[in-house]
Amino acid sequence: MTKIGILGYGNLGKGVEKAILKNSDMELVAIFTRRNPNSITPATKNVNVVSTNDIENYKDKIDVLIICGGSATDLPIQTPKYVEMFNVIDSFDTHAKIPEHFENVDCAAKKSGKIGIISVGWDPGLFSLNRLYANAILPDGMDYTFWGKGVSQGHSDAIRRIKGVKDAKQYTIPVDEALKAVREGKNPVLSTRQKHTRECFVVVEEGANKEQIEHEIKTMPNYFADYDTTVHFITQEELEKNHSKIPHGGFVLRSGKTSEENSHIIEYSLKLDSNPEFTSSVLVAYARAAHKLNMEGVSGCKTVFDIAPKYLIAKTDEEIRKTML
Amino acid sequence: MTKIGILGYGNLGKGVEKAILKNSDMELVAIFTRRNPNSITPATKNVNVVSTNDIENYKDKIDVLIICGGSATDLPIQTPKYVEMFNVIDSFDTHAKIPEHFENVDCAAKKSGKIGIISVGWDPGLFSLNRLYANAILPDGMDYTFWGKGVSQGHSDAIRRIKGVKDAKQYTIPVDEALKAVREGKNPVLSTRQKHTRECFVVVEEGANKEQIEHEIKTMPNYFADYDTTVHFITQEELEKNHSKIPHGGFVLRSGKTSEENSHIIEYSLKLDSNPEFTSSVLVAYARAAHKLNMEGVSGCKTVFDIAPKYLIAKTDEEIRKTML
Repeated sequence: MTKIGILGYGNLGKGVEKAILKNSDMELVAIFTRRNPNSITPATKNVNVVSTNDIENYKDKIDVLIICGGSATDLPIQTPKYVEMFNVIDSFDTHAKIPEHFENVDCAAKKSGKIGIISVGWDPGLFSLNRLYANAILPDGMDYTFWGKGVSQGHSDAIRRIKGVKDAKQYTIPVDEALKAVREGKNPVLSTRQKHTRECFVVVEEGANKEQIEHEIKTMPNYFADYDTTVHFITQEELEKNHSKIPHGGFVLRSGKTSEENSHIIEYSLKLDSNPEFTSSVLVAYARAAHKLNMEGVSGCKTVFDIAPKYLIAKTDEEIRKTML
Repeated sequence: MTKIGILGYGNLGKGVEKAILKNSDMELVAIFTRRNPNSITPATKNVNVVSTNDIENYKDKIDVLIICGGSATDLPIQTPKYVEMFNVIDSFDTHAKIPEHFENVDCAAKKSGKIGIISVGWDPGLFSLNRLYANAILPDGMDYTFWGKGVSQGHSDAIRRIKGVKDAKQYTIPVDEALKAVREGKNPVLSTRQKHTRECFVVVEEGANKEQIEHEIKTMPNYFADYDTTVHFITQEELEKNHSKIPHGGFVLRSGKTSEENSHIIEYSLKLDSNPEFTSSVLVAYARAAHKLNMEGVSGCKTVFDIAPKYLIAKTDEEIRKTML
């Protein structure tokens, strides 16, 4: 059994709780929170809800701590801090800051003899793995990543910050023709606009200027200006009824040549009903790996690139060779 | 640099030779053959063609031997034999006999201190990896594998053995509706007939009984009887013009739930112009891994499940974290 602690009980933490229920070799021991523990009622019976102030008491009671904080301000502090006491997993996804985060976690983990697996999820995570495998196999080729159809939390938030907007949901949508051209091995050079469109569902306050809001959305630099964007104004009821889920997904493709005559396409895709629940399931699989590897004496910071696939699954080496190879 | 030897110069061996040209950290040192070495003219200049009788002379001259023999009779003997002298890679694909082959190679490799990575390619190989990753992440779900559209060498050979048949090519084709139902998360239970169809292009000898041949193909047990099979009689010229390539590919899907409400689809697919050239490219990536791992002191038999992804690529850990994660 792998004994798990969850740090942070938002969408991701709740997803980890559900994922543990799907894995009979996993046990949820405690949920740690910065909030008042009494304010939280976990879905799992008999699980402790503990203030992060008391987390040290669990040093010998859990095998892996899954840190479910945000990449902007939580994880850069939490992951190096808690790897001093626990094997940890995080989903740090600020791509540009991964090298720095890696160094901080590695330094702390090597001192404590624990393992910290960072940037686990689907991108970074499963998509990264597929980029690496495909590049190793087809060194002469081109990479393509498409995201969606799915909800972008960052873009939804950006719309919500506009004056007069009550609520909003933004979907990132890959452009079919672009995806088709890649699949056909045409190796297109694609601009930002040619790869994705953005679709926004917006609830406004009474008397708000819709025309002005639509203009502000469509011209917002970085977020929307470089895309073909569609804006739909809907009611709060419609938003709740039709747009309450957090689906996502995407495609990683590599097109490459092995000789003058022969080209190949490798494609990996995800279609997810719930982005946080799926991400949590990846975190739990890597928690299993962290536990196994640390029992073998491995410590330091790791990423998905460093973990042999066999460590992710609750089967013996003999079983996987017999049933999955 | 990784110095490579190729054992066997058929389609696969020739593919390995081409793959090495695409990898600047790889060098082809020698091609070993059971035929008369003078009968072989390699595509690469200045490469030695050597009788397998003299392979021992290359013990310290190559880092990895890529064994390009067949699974039926060659590999069960060759891989355990040559791992006594070299790090080796093979593409052993008789699924049911993998455990036995593993034990034989493991025993010899542990004695010699070399590493032998077996069953490398795309199925077994990349498809196996995707089955494992997807099962680890979505333990509550269903697996689907579809092959094609592609040439099945075994089925083409079976047709050629029929009296009156001069030449033949057989394509395995996944059934679109079945694939679509899986992608939509319907978790269909599919019979053999519902998953694939078989299309045959047959050249007959003059005066042969086409009706009889078509009947023999369609009712052939194991090979065709359980499938909807189409037979086209064509000329030798048409066969050579339109069916000389060896394309293949396929799909690995897993559909799984993380909670009552939320389902997810993970899909991996390959579209290959040349089955042997692509398989060879996978072999070469794992040859790099074998070399790196053996330099770290690792020995014994391994499969794709045991190899951390980072070993496959000719980049440093820092580079891959920075550019691919």
